[in-house]
Amino acid sequence: MDHKEEHLQSSEMLRDIVIGMSDGLTVPFALAAGLSGAVSSTGIIIIAGIAEIAAGSIAMGLGGYLAGKTEIDHYNSELKREYEEVDAVPEKEKEEVREFFGNLGLSEEVQYKAAEEIAKDKKVWVDFMMKYELGLDKPDPQRATKSALNIGLSYVVGGLVPLSPYFFIDTPVEALKISVLVTLICLFVFGYFKSRMTGVHPLGGALKVMLIGAVAAGAAFGVAKIFE
Amino acid sequence: MDHKEEHLQSSEMLRDIVIGMSDGLTVPFALAAGLSGAVSSTGIIIIAGIAEIAAGSIAMGLGGYLAGKTEIDHYNSELKREYEEVDAVPEKEKEEVREFFGNLGLSEEVQYKAAEEIAKDKKVWVDFMMKYELGLDKPDPQRATKSALNIGLSYVVGGLVPLSPYFFIDTPVEALKISVLVTLICLFVFGYFKSRMTGVHPLGGALKVMLIGAVAAGAAFGVAKIFE
Repeated sequence: MDHKEEHLQSSEMLRDIVIGMSDGLTVPFALAAGLSGAVSSTGIIIIAGIAEIAAGSIAMGLGGYLAGKTEIDHYNSELKREYEEVDAVPEKEKEEVREFFGNLGLSEEVQYKAAEEIAKDKKVWVDFMMKYELGLDKPDPQRATKSALNIGLSYVVGGLVPLSPYFFIDTPVEALKISVLVTLICLFVFGYFKSRMTGVHPLGGALKVMLIGAVAAGAAFGVAKIFE
Repeated sequence: MDHKEEHLQSSEMLRDIVIGMSDGLTVPFALAAGLSGAVSSTGIIIIAGIAEIAAGSIAMGLGGYLAGKTEIDHYNSELKREYEEVDAVPEKEKEEVREFFGNLGLSEEVQYKAAEEIAKDKKVWVDFMMKYELGLDKPDPQRATKSALNIGLSYVVGGLVPLSPYFFIDTPVEALKISVLVTLICLFVFGYFKSRMTGVHPLGGALKVMLIGAVAAGAAFGVAKIFE
């Protein structure tokens, strides 16, 4: 049980990093690429890139934080309601437990016995209703903060990769060449590990992640050229 | 059952729209705000904004598409493995069904009976293992495409809101004033409906969504000023 919990937590952190880095590598990359086709100074690209990284990391991080907080509030308000319902209309709630077992394909006899056994302990009963009637897992109260930091920082780290060449090279199109090379390699490596983590074919997954980045950057470049 | 399915589909579509519009209203808004403090021409802001909208909508839309496809592939490969396991090691798989019922707090007698009843029909058995051992719901095969379009288009619609004043006003800081006003109102209205949809207090939720946008825009403005 402890081992499983730990496994879940580390995979949630990895998921946050994947969420943040995935967008962090892609969107600032595409923005820099788009601007490289339209402006003559890398100064503008750096300012826009930094502004985008600040905006994106805050929007994603703070968004993740509030989503986590909302999940906890939602869980607690539903938990309170389930306790009230179990007290106020126990027979109706028992019927819902039986229904769950009925939907699994169990006989009436087993449905009744199972419902009686679960209804013996109020906490077990309410936890059952939360998980199987409402499909809600107990959220970790610390998740919201951790999630916000992981997503936000991963976005910043990811975003600095495509932007870094523009700090050292003065010509936008020259900097773009290095940026494309470095970012596509990073997207490939990142996609490889992300795919392994999620049980997808690593090479295929890596190519797909790289492709999204390339398509986004190409589209941004093309669109910026049109509006130039 | 049909009604429930419909309800789920429309809420999935709303969820996609919320995901796309939430970032679409926030990130291009913050980028435009950041650049408004650092450049003297709205032309650059429009190009950067359009490039960002193209990049963000493609990254999010294509990202959503691939995530959907991956979910389907993952489900199908696990389904195949469960069928094989049920054939190869039926007693071990029955034991896992009993364990699930044991964890619910049911007596040994009910655990055994329930496991025997579920194992009578191979499809029921495998579906049970998929859902309750692995926690996997059968994904809609059309979801990936629909999800990509909904998220991507919502991002474009959301992103054009903060950018629109820059098309009509030549001075960045003047355009920013209108952009802040229009976007904060839209974020508030959007946050209000999003909160109602997810069962959060609408006014509080609306204020939070507006706050994320304001903080992201303020940070982008400040950071861009530093790097100006």
